[in-house]
Amino acid sequence: MSVETATKSEPQALLAWPPQLDAVHLQELTNLATDWSMFHGLVYRPPANPPSEPYPSTSRVIHAPFTLFPSPLPRQLYELARRLQPLYNTLYARIAVDVLWLDKIMSAVAKVDDFQLELYKIWKQVRAEGITQPLELGLWRSDYLVHSLPDGAFTLRQVEFNCISSSFGALASRTNQMHRYLEAATGYYGAHPLLNANNLPQNGALEGLALGIAEAHKAYGVPSATVLFLVQPHERNVFDQRPLEYELLTKHGVHVERVTFADLAASASLSESKQLLYTTPLKPQPLEISVVYMRAGYTPNDYFGEADWAARLLVERSKAIKCPTVGAQLAGAKKVQQALMEEGVLESFLLDPARGPEKFTESDLVLLRASFAPMYALDATTVQTTIENAAHLVLKPQREGGGNNVYRSNIPPFLKKLPAAEHEAWVVMELIEPPPLRNVLLKAGASEEGGKEGDVISELGIFGICLYGSEGSGSCEIKVNEEVGYLVRTKGRESDEGGVAVGFSCLDSLVLVD
Amino acid sequence: MSVETATKSEPQALLAWPPQLDAVHLQELTNLATDWSMFHGLVYRPPANPPSEPYPSTSRVIHAPFTLFPSPLPRQLYELARRLQPLYNTLYARIAVDVLWLDKIMSAVAKVDDFQLELYKIWKQVRAEGITQPLELGLWRSDYLVHSLPDGAFTLRQVEFNCISSSFGALASRTNQMHRYLEAATGYYGAHPLLNANNLPQNGALEGLALGIAEAHKAYGVPSATVLFLVQPHERNVFDQRPLEYELLTKHGVHVERVTFADLAASASLSESKQLLYTTPLKPQPLEISVVYMRAGYTPNDYFGEADWAARLLVERSKAIKCPTVGAQLAGAKKVQQALMEEGVLESFLLDPARGPEKFTESDLVLLRASFAPMYALDATTVQTTIENAAHLVLKPQREGGGNNVYRSNIPPFLKKLPAAEHEAWVVMELIEPPPLRNVLLKAGASEEGGKEGDVISELGIFGICLYGSEGSGSCEIKVNEEVGYLVRTKGRESDEGGVAVGFSCLDSLVLVD
Repeated sequence: MSVETATKSEPQALLAWPPQLDAVHLQELTNLATDWSMFHGLVYRPPANPPSEPYPSTSRVIHAPFTLFPSPLPRQLYELARRLQPLYNTLYARIAVDVLWLDKIMSAVAKVDDFQLELYKIWKQVRAEGITQPLELGLWRSDYLVHSLPDGAFTLRQVEFNCISSSFGALASRTNQMHRYLEAATGYYGAHPLLNANNLPQNGALEGLALGIAEAHKAYGVPSATVLFLVQPHERNVFDQRPLEYELLTKHGVHVERVTFADLAASASLSESKQLLYTTPLKPQPLEISVVYMRAGYTPNDYFGEADWAARLLVERSKAIKCPTVGAQLAGAKKVQQALMEEGVLESFLLDPARGPEKFTESDLVLLRASFAPMYALDATTVQTTIENAAHLVLKPQREGGGNNVYRSNIPPFLKKLPAAEHEAWVVMELIEPPPLRNVLLKAGASEEGGKEGDVISELGIFGICLYGSEGSGSCEIKVNEEVGYLVRTKGRESDEGGVAVGFSCLDSLVLVD
Repeated sequence: MSVETATKSEPQALLAWPPQLDAVHLQELTNLATDWSMFHGLVYRPPANPPSEPYPSTSRVIHAPFTLFPSPLPRQLYELARRLQPLYNTLYARIAVDVLWLDKIMSAVAKVDDFQLELYKIWKQVRAEGITQPLELGLWRSDYLVHSLPDGAFTLRQVEFNCISSSFGALASRTNQMHRYLEAATGYYGAHPLLNANNLPQNGALEGLALGIAEAHKAYGVPSATVLFLVQPHERNVFDQRPLEYELLTKHGVHVERVTFADLAASASLSESKQLLYTTPLKPQPLEISVVYMRAGYTPNDYFGEADWAARLLVERSKAIKCPTVGAQLAGAKKVQQALMEEGVLESFLLDPARGPEKFTESDLVLLRASFAPMYALDATTVQTTIENAAHLVLKPQREGGGNNVYRSNIPPFLKKLPAAEHEAWVVMELIEPPPLRNVLLKAGASEEGGKEGDVISELGIFGICLYGSEGSGSCEIKVNEEVGYLVRTKGRESDEGGVAVGFSCLDSLVLVD
């Protein structure tokens, strides 16, 4: 089996992107794209406009931010990312059930991160009480940037592996359909030979993520049970979540109830046999919950107080299949990414037959390793090197959810003030050097302003679904393991932070380059 | 063949509608319905907010006005309306090609209606020059109200037969899907046994109307030609039109160009062989137009000046298949509805074998006649009767497009002032007496206010597609003749005027009652 982790050279198409069209053509593409988006649910709730509107309106929507053109990616790197996903799925499933190994990582992280400490406490408590539901569901997303190697070739570098609330599956599927529509309707006015349907890979993320939830529901074994979507109150990105409900209902006959932590705190309980029950004024009987799909709970801001933490504990104690369990959520720590780079760790997780029946080869490990972005722990021994090489580095907090990264020249002054006790809250990562790329970006709900061409960075996410369970002694049974689709988020190069939902970056899709 | 034109008695279900639910359940249905609608394109552009916004925004939408529950209709009347449609299609196709008969009607109407006079002039001119395209496309909608007969039974009475710009096919299909979704997701909380999927008839209006255009495109015979949608500038109801484009593109591979009269006036021309050519800065070559689908041109307000009238004339002269031709547009005059009630007219159109090969029976004529709302010409001999019976009558202008009707007690003072020369501009119609009905109405973009239950009137429209052509001497060849779906518009009983798009009435669907 060949193992190619990089292109032979720099594809020329990336340098000549986007195709140049005059204002009339760009305007028509913008009109077509925005109308298509608003008819097909590529939308957000508009921002609230306090004080008259304390919350986002529920009766109108704006089109999502998107790129007018899909972004080019070497086909070989796309295939590489897809091939990596089942490997990553297996790896993280095995990590999530290896409590001893995770304990070692977490006891260090928890010292410096109050949020992960709280999660860790819950995990230890439910383990002490005895796990009632061996199965866990992962709807994961592995995020990559294209990295320019010194020899001019390109490779992929993993930015992070999202273990909770991996979002944008539905909207990314829609964005791909929108770009395919523009191609079908206009041929992009012949602007570029790459822009034909064969090069715009279909995106099954929405269907795939729903399938993951449906498989977990089926495995729970009570067809009449209900799936809970745990969501943030007044969610603006609800049209990335509702489509999963529609898909579950129409394709799988599975019913969903959307609840917040406050709802859970008020109305969830456990039966004697640890069924998770949810009482709603909408139904005469409490609902038995098969799967808890969390689109909230990934940031400390989601827990408004003790009652919310108690609700999370209640869920973790229950027989419901969690997506994710608190243990799997902890496995998303950047410290885990860093630990995977240490000698022998990957071998232990993938080559040891005691971990599970799946067979992996040295080639698989080469693929995975080549996708790691070099990183190391921040501690007394590495502070000085970090300051010296700051120009190529980023400091990332252990916490999930983005934000608060410290880049390049901001690192030395930051480290000089950082107490040594807080070193463990941070991971140092070599900055990925994405090749120059341009695209036309449209801000959310601002099509009248027209798109703006500019330098961009495109991040590729690959969605994976994994239904797995501990068989004790670190052995992991994997019942479902699939790569299901992709996300491209493209942001103006001036911004170093992500967050499509808040308008900094745009939903995008792929055009593959041979 | 049995001919039943009325129910045996008044169905009880209509009296006990809508099912009663408490505020919590109604709120959840409202939330589910509005999110579903905004994700699935059951939306409008919001009203413009001058002076900062002279035109409706193109980057945000509001949910359409809709009923929370489908409205009950006896199944027998639904089947009757569907059975009537191919009969009406044939009838209006034969009317549209019977120039002598229409001339007689129009010469009277044109005397008192400037708009129809202008259309009539165009029709006469293109007939004199010679018709270049024998085929015509009808995307028609026959509108009915349920009428309470004196014996307590119900029947259907036709309100009008729309020959141009029959709208809401796409949004009506969506509304049906929305109600079906509410049923699938919640079972309407068991509120009523009628609310199950078997009683919510699927609505194929969107697909059917697109099929009609696709059939006409195919009949034109130039696969690479383009379909023109003639639309009003700054259309708010664009999401009732775009879906037809999407359906034509994805299912039939047919391309659509949206243009206004101003665009046509600036950029349309005829080739020597009368091809309709449209020059756009978007394409290097002029486009050959196969079909002109008019979603504008039905009201004098759509023609801003001589250039717009000249554009209409250009289209009528061309080889493109018109939907509708100016002749078929004139066939929609209320005076035609009235003339069809005269003795022998229906027999002549449907039983005379010289009209075409289709065979009709006396039963068919009974069905059609039973659906006519009694009406008569306003003239010197009927003015006094009209004033005396005003309580049961409505005066309707000959013009298409709604508005300006004069009802009941407003008729006598109106007639006393109306010059005799203007009598011919009006048709007198017996008012239809719909049974009492209630539903919960949600205003467009106002889901936060919640729905309001009230007395309503529900109007049923049946969509038909018809591709037909004159074979000379009043003979008509019909190539396509199908009933394709339905529209229900429901409005508060206090309002005597229609117009869903302006927020007076709500999109609705059917629940069939046995």
